[in-house]
Amino acid sequence: MTTPYQLLYWPGLQGRGEFVRLALEEAGVPYVDVARQKGGMPKMMASLDFEQTDHPSFAPPVLQAGELLIGQTANILMYLGTKHKLAPRAEAGRLWANQLQLTIADIVNEAHETHHPISTNLYYEDQKTEAKKRAKDFREHRIPKFLDYFEGVVQGGWAVGSRLSYVDLSLFQLIEGLRYAFPKTMARLEPSYPKLIALHDKVAARPNIAAYLQSKRRIPFNETGIFRRYPELDK
Amino acid sequence: MTTPYQLLYWPGLQGRGEFVRLALEEAGVPYVDVARQKGGMPKMMASLDFEQTDHPSFAPPVLQAGELLIGQTANILMYLGTKHKLAPRAEAGRLWANQLQLTIADIVNEAHETHHPISTNLYYEDQKTEAKKRAKDFREHRIPKFLDYFEGVVQGGWAVGSRLSYVDLSLFQLIEGLRYAFPKTMARLEPSYPKLIALHDKVAARPNIAAYLQSKRRIPFNETGIFRRYPELDK
Repeated sequence: MTTPYQLLYWPGLQGRGEFVRLALEEAGVPYVDVARQKGGMPKMMASLDFEQTDHPSFAPPVLQAGELLIGQTANILMYLGTKHKLAPRAEAGRLWANQLQLTIADIVNEAHETHHPISTNLYYEDQKTEAKKRAKDFREHRIPKFLDYFEGVVQGGWAVGSRLSYVDLSLFQLIEGLRYAFPKTMARLEPSYPKLIALHDKVAARPNIAAYLQSKRRIPFNETGIFRRYPELDK
Repeated sequence: MTTPYQLLYWPGLQGRGEFVRLALEEAGVPYVDVARQKGGMPKMMASLDFEQTDHPSFAPPVLQAGELLIGQTANILMYLGTKHKLAPRAEAGRLWANQLQLTIADIVNEAHETHHPISTNLYYEDQKTEAKKRAKDFREHRIPKFLDYFEGVVQGGWAVGSRLSYVDLSLFQLIEGLRYAFPKTMARLEPSYPKLIALHDKVAARPNIAAYLQSKRRIPFNETGIFRRYPELDK
């Protein structure tokens, strides 16, 4: 491929874009993180605008792949999975990978809701009381419910079939994010999920991923992303 | 096909299963709504259980198609779209349809959050104060933002290309659900979305859909589904 991929995502945070970055990095394909380049923001905004593109996305991340402009994280990953052997070729395996990715998207959404349970248009500080209640439920009920499920999924060592897929990369990122946002909760829960933690470690050790994590391309977690460390939301 | 599809979903509510039902009904293919049959519940529960199936789903709806067990609404629709000409064959069109369906899933999730902003483990009555705040934001900011987007999407008469796709069926259901849950809000907003309402009406008039909506197979909206009519959440 002569034209590298262009990732269109907010600069300065991992967010949902990070699931795409991990797939691109593991695949070892060239890409430009457009909005992190000087003058890149207008290009990202154009991908959301009916005046400037035929198929704008509702929100980033968006991947430009040649003529194609692809939105929605799980959709981008499905595309990359097919092109770069990060998912099975057969229909049953592709559907299973997509199903798991959509289930990861569900807990990622819920992680975001813990600090914004009322409105994305209000500051965290203006919904902190509600956030504490929502986070309590997330810690006590939702994280265990999802991790129980994913622990079952990865019994064979990988999420899908007998080799790495984009789903494993996303499970790695999920664990990373939960550890960042809920360190006490995760310290307590992790011993119950040995297969999932082993998978996380196996992904972290892959050469391309290990190199990426140490590079400047990996934006540190912070309090503008999905996974935010607000100590009052952890126990 | 000799074996009809089996839809595995909670009985007694439309919920996310309804997006699948509409696709099956439009396609005119035989299906069994398993949990609505006598003795069907254990079969639905088995589809969520690692002890009873290799690839259990985190939550319903699940579609059994021969040997395949497919979870996550958008994933099921992608499958049905391919099999029953409810989506384009070409990659770009398939990705665009899936992207739009995932964006519909996002507003559907947010509609659910309006009555359960704190926890799905608590009754609505126990989170009513927070629900009123969340619903205000949903009515004032989120519904218009999503409908603005979808109005742009359907400028050509259909969401994807020049004929009906499963995305149009889901947009129909979205409008139906919003009308049920937020009748005052929608009465105020609908004049701003003529193309979307025209699409809704066009879907409602399709012979298979019209017949379905009048049948007993269409469960009425109620206060156990995603779209619930709580007058205090509407204005």
